Amino acid sequence: MGSIETHVGETQAREIYASAIHFDGLNICNWSREIFQSWHNGGITGVSCTCGLWEGLRGSLANFVQWKTWFEQHSDLIVQAQSVADIRGAKKDGKTAVLLSWQNPAGIEDQLTYLRVFQDLGVRKMQLTYNTQNYSGAGYTELHDSGLTGFGREVVDEMARLCIVVDLSHVGPKTSEDAINYSPTDKPPCFSHILPGGLKDHPRNKSDHLIRLIGSKGGFVGLSQFGPHMKRGNDSTVDDYVDALDYVISLIGEDLVGIGSDASEGHGRPSEFMAWCNKDKGYARQLTPWGSQKVVKPLGLLKDRAELACAMARKGWSEAKMRKVLGENWLNYLERIFGQ
Amino acid sequence: MGSIETHVGETQAREIYASAIHFDGLNICNWSREIFQSWHNGGITGVSCTCGLWEGLRGSLANFVQWKTWFEQHSDLIVQAQSVADIRGAKKDGKTAVLLSWQNPAGIEDQLTYLRVFQDLGVRKMQLTYNTQNYSGAGYTELHDSGLTGFGREVVDEMARLCIVVDLSHVGPKTSEDAINYSPTDKPPCFSHILPGGLKDHPRNKSDHLIRLIGSKGGFVGLSQFGPHMKRGNDSTVDDYVDALDYVISLIGEDLVGIGSDASEGHGRPSEFMAWCNKDKGYARQLTPWGSQKVVKPLGLLKDRAELACAMARKGWSEAKMRKVLGENWLNYLERIFGQ
Repeated sequence: MGSIETHVGETQAREIYASAIHFDGLNICNWSREIFQSWHNGGITGVSCTCGLWEGLRGSLANFVQWKTWFEQHSDLIVQAQSVADIRGAKKDGKTAVLLSWQNPAGIEDQLTYLRVFQDLGVRKMQLTYNTQNYSGAGYTELHDSGLTGFGREVVDEMARLCIVVDLSHVGPKTSEDAINYSPTDKPPCFSHILPGGLKDHPRNKSDHLIRLIGSKGGFVGLSQFGPHMKRGNDSTVDDYVDALDYVISLIGEDLVGIGSDASEGHGRPSEFMAWCNKDKGYARQLTPWGSQKVVKPLGLLKDRAELACAMARKGWSEAKMRKVLGENWLNYLERIFGQ
Repeated sequence: MGSIETHVGETQAREIYASAIHFDGLNICNWSREIFQSWHNGGITGVSCTCGLWEGLRGSLANFVQWKTWFEQHSDLIVQAQSVADIRGAKKDGKTAVLLSWQNPAGIEDQLTYLRVFQDLGVRKMQLTYNTQNYSGAGYTELHDSGLTGFGREVVDEMARLCIVVDLSHVGPKTSEDAINYSPTDKPPCFSHILPGGLKDHPRNKSDHLIRLIGSKGGFVGLSQFGPHMKRGNDSTVDDYVDALDYVISLIGEDLVGIGSDASEGHGRPSEFMAWCNKDKGYARQLTPWGSQKVVKPLGLLKDRAELACAMARKGWSEAKMRKVLGENWLNYLERIFGQ
């Protein structure tokens, strides 16, 4: 053992992928039956789906109700996941599990108690802030990074108590560091969809320091796929994506790393939706140019997600490493945060 | 002229006070006919009244409607002011003018457009934040001071356009400095109710540097009366208060200084109201101990406000200086911000 290297070929890679749990830590698609069908065709087991970004309480409740309608209308393809067991169950049933998630706690407005409401409705992962300053801390585009605020500490405390995953992907570096250090040891945060700053220096990417820090706490890192933030820019391919995975694995090992594709299929660039995302609170000043600029997504379409497994095989990854990074790592992490 | 000093005696001081405009830049009383009667008995011409602190949109609208009801029910004593002319008109009519004000823009929630709604309803002075971090910046009790945020710049821009006074009293030092420097030259902010840090070092007090900076821009400084934040603590008297006025006048001259008593008559200490003020967002962690600790207010009761004029006279203030600091300075500043 150890010295015997088993090369995984393409056919075997596809077989492994078909039987593996593949969990994608972030999608923000133009939700429709076509997307749900693409997940199915792509063999995607579970997806953390953004159902809150700039919306306040009412908009967030409306998003939830919309998802409940979709769960009913498309019950042949998707099912709501409230636990890791639900995700494993979806795999067995040939469906895709949807973990409702927020990229911003705007939906609680200024009420800590609303965290409990949305936890009960199934929102199990929330980003502390999206790009700008909110009551809890600063996003990565903010003029100055406030760090985790006093209220942010209360939000982190309450999310820990409610077993909601704290996501720091779009959060500023100081707020991220504060939140990692402040979180209870059994509820480390994650970067659900980031790229490593060590391969491309960009404020949206996370430094080696922060990746090592979150890893040292048992937190999780999901890698997004956004050409302009990758080493080879919009020339990046799925093989570059696997290189980025290996880079992060070199920092924190192969048990805390996974996929967070940030797939936005169905939304055009430019589009009203992208313009909404890229303005503070959905309507104020523009924050990033990416709503209208060219962005290559090296993982390709959701329906072609098996190509990722083939690329892993090309890099000489073992079956065990493939299964972990494709999904088992995410599920182990979620299990730790969700508890029993 | 210049060398002839006219000593103002007590009787003359009371006569000057009776004929002077006295504008108080902040009250946060337990509003009732008794308070309105006390203003009348105290000869107070106009008051900036807090009608928003932690309340969101609905609570702030409710506060406005409550004030409209009071304006109708107590029209013999009070009148809403939407302009400086309204304040001067109230003096002529023997009533007290109420300038509706917020200590926190929580009422706009995350919508810049609501600034226009509340400006139209008569909210003409708003503090950028109350004690903690919000979308615009940090309060003085926050863990770190974010400075004026990107959204905060948009708030300041919109308030300038709408001729709403930007108040920085409870705002953190970096956010205060940023807001002073960012504001358009014709719309400088104010500290409506502060004490000088040069006499007592306390995070709620404003440094000589910030007082000089706001003065250099033509901004305004109203002095509050809060024993624990004054040089002689709870032993402070009305004469110490006048000393504090003279201290600030020594920094920025006698044209930009006035009164912002922060009178909270009718609220007990402790009281539910004080506990609400002293918790983030009205319910979260406690921010200051002052809801239940002893606080001497050296200006005494509202009905006895003429004593302030007597104390000014004891310090040898001229009639002109008395009239300016009692109210003319506030009105000149408000006229500059409100425009025509």
